[in-house]
Amino acid sequence: MAIDNEIEVKETSRLGGDQSVGLVETQTWTFEAPLPLDCGRTLSPVTQAYETYGALNAARDNAIIIFHALSGDAHMAGYHTPEDRKPGWWDIMVGPGKPFDTDRYYLICANVIGGCKGSTGPASVDPNTGKPYGLSFPVVTVGDMVRAQKRLVEHLGIERLLAVGGGSMGGMLALDWAVRYPDAVASVLAIATSARLNAQGIAFNEVGRQAIMADPDWRGGDYYGRTPPSAGLAIARMVGHITYLSDHQMRAKFGRRLQNRRAFGYDFETEFQVESYLKYQGDSFVRRFDANSYLYITKAIDYFDLANGHHSLVMALERIQAEFLVVSFSSDWLFPTSAAKEIVKALQANGVPTTYLDIHNPYGHDAFLLPNEELGRTVSGFLANVHRQVRKDAL
Amino acid sequence: MAIDNEIEVKETSRLGGDQSVGLVETQTWTFEAPLPLDCGRTLSPVTQAYETYGALNAARDNAIIIFHALSGDAHMAGYHTPEDRKPGWWDIMVGPGKPFDTDRYYLICANVIGGCKGSTGPASVDPNTGKPYGLSFPVVTVGDMVRAQKRLVEHLGIERLLAVGGGSMGGMLALDWAVRYPDAVASVLAIATSARLNAQGIAFNEVGRQAIMADPDWRGGDYYGRTPPSAGLAIARMVGHITYLSDHQMRAKFGRRLQNRRAFGYDFETEFQVESYLKYQGDSFVRRFDANSYLYITKAIDYFDLANGHHSLVMALERIQAEFLVVSFSSDWLFPTSAAKEIVKALQANGVPTTYLDIHNPYGHDAFLLPNEELGRTVSGFLANVHRQVRKDAL
Repeated sequence: MAIDNEIEVKETSRLGGDQSVGLVETQTWTFEAPLPLDCGRTLSPVTQAYETYGALNAARDNAIIIFHALSGDAHMAGYHTPEDRKPGWWDIMVGPGKPFDTDRYYLICANVIGGCKGSTGPASVDPNTGKPYGLSFPVVTVGDMVRAQKRLVEHLGIERLLAVGGGSMGGMLALDWAVRYPDAVASVLAIATSARLNAQGIAFNEVGRQAIMADPDWRGGDYYGRTPPSAGLAIARMVGHITYLSDHQMRAKFGRRLQNRRAFGYDFETEFQVESYLKYQGDSFVRRFDANSYLYITKAIDYFDLANGHHSLVMALERIQAEFLVVSFSSDWLFPTSAAKEIVKALQANGVPTTYLDIHNPYGHDAFLLPNEELGRTVSGFLANVHRQVRKDAL
Repeated sequence: MAIDNEIEVKETSRLGGDQSVGLVETQTWTFEAPLPLDCGRTLSPVTQAYETYGALNAARDNAIIIFHALSGDAHMAGYHTPEDRKPGWWDIMVGPGKPFDTDRYYLICANVIGGCKGSTGPASVDPNTGKPYGLSFPVVTVGDMVRAQKRLVEHLGIERLLAVGGGSMGGMLALDWAVRYPDAVASVLAIATSARLNAQGIAFNEVGRQAIMADPDWRGGDYYGRTPPSAGLAIARMVGHITYLSDHQMRAKFGRRLQNRRAFGYDFETEFQVESYLKYQGDSFVRRFDANSYLYITKAIDYFDLANGHHSLVMALERIQAEFLVVSFSSDWLFPTSAAKEIVKALQANGVPTTYLDIHNPYGHDAFLLPNEELGRTVSGFLANVHRQVRKDAL
């Protein structure tokens, strides 16, 4: 299950990046035992696409699972083929000598259920009908996604993880894991995330969903094998992208500059750079993402509230046994600093050892995907410390 | 052209509001002389729907024009019929004894060209074809809207206005007037506005336009007499509404509360209150607004940059002769305080007498449409002072 180190080094040098995990392969694992879901239904079979990096050590105490965000996938680091233009989505953080150091730790990343990157989702074939689920796929929650990945982790032979972590929605899964399986994790990295989505976040997600469902090609979700609702999905993605950048960043990146023209066109073509950027983001997204998955995953995010089923956030965190690293970015207005502080306060009220880092930079919510030395150093130090503690406790 | 005071009082008491301008009528005025536009084309004939409130005095020194925002119209105060559920859009500010005191001032408000509330716009009949313009209507700018309204003001027999004012896009028209016709205005009220739309604002507008243009019912703008692109327009309006409210206000107003249900439905129906609110806003908007006008007016807002054609904002304001009242709202993230301060600084650099008021409340951009004593008092005092000065200068 781990990447062969020799091959890795060879491939890495071939790619010219001495800090890359090199070539990786997405694997899949399917279980038949019905997965109970929060909605009351069950899902079976459940396939999960996942990738692993580094090697599980003999003590099995160096495994970390990272959860991806809304549009992410299992391909977190390295390359699938030498021809890939870009590495995995968190390659800056995962690799030999990187903060999630694959020379030390065994990293796992799996596509969420409901997704469209190899795990069971609305585009999968419903065994009862022999056709793609479409909207008959059950509405899954962050908790359901976590339950599915717990089975994967057990399948990989791991009882207790050194860490669970993620940014944005990935951070929500990490928080959920810590509450759901307090015995099965030593530390949590909750980055650019929140214990619940606020009204504004729900509102933006709903606009995206309405845009998809208003597209006549959506056909009530039954579009597989036909033209997909690309126009609607592109608009949803455009809305999302506005929320991922800070106003300051948009100003610095685009301002009011025109794209490929020197004067106003007085028409409805794309003319400002910011329009061109959004259009590009929307158009490229529809080539790699399934519109129904966008509906399901945003719905899971909307539903997420760590205090669900508890009297309060503080009480929800009562059984926590892990140490926490909570990170926010000052210019993130989708998951603002105040949301991170709410988590930190509730952890502190429970006496949970918590490191809180508020990073000041102008990159908005997307900052967690960008290179940041402060983030890197803090993650690296936090993990080393937790690992040391775990080993000490095992003696 | 002014409202008969006797009728007004009678109607007002019938409506039970002793501070209402009572029943008003929208009037129209059409001119044939071609209006030159920034795009290089001309428009003719040009009809403008407008309303007036109060009476022009003998000195003709008490006239104020108010410019409406994106979705506004000429109906600023009072009622069209006794059955109207709601008065005009700024009834809280315009009326006898109100900040824009109709016992003292003569108020004018006209629908912008490009609009759909009685003024010439994309839904109007093109005299060259006998059919609605649709997308063959020229792309108009804030400057074009102002030029058209200048002709209306002249038609009403007014050479110099006591004040021009407005919130949001209305503030942009007010700023443009002050630069374009420095001799023709004594004061400017620029409320919740900006000297230019920033990248984030352009981005949100572009999402709205893309949603409209992606609606198959839009048919390249040629939908008059057929089903209009309601789904697209509703999505555009939903996006807009998110930007009009502050995050804080959304949290207070909706939080994560569910609408008419006690538990999650695990489906894609409207279930959070904030979704229900947005859906209502979208659905009611499509019954009163034309999608093509939404395209044209947002484009005019995007194009607006007071420094266009000048070397800088400071230089653009060189010829200003008016006094200024600039108002911002602390929780407005669409036209933030920083945008107001930029205007204030550029005015001060030109030695323009400027009052700046930053109102601290949680209501976001929409705050300028809500009752606010501080705003009311400041506007009232500012106008009284300007009027006193104008009368003194005339002696």
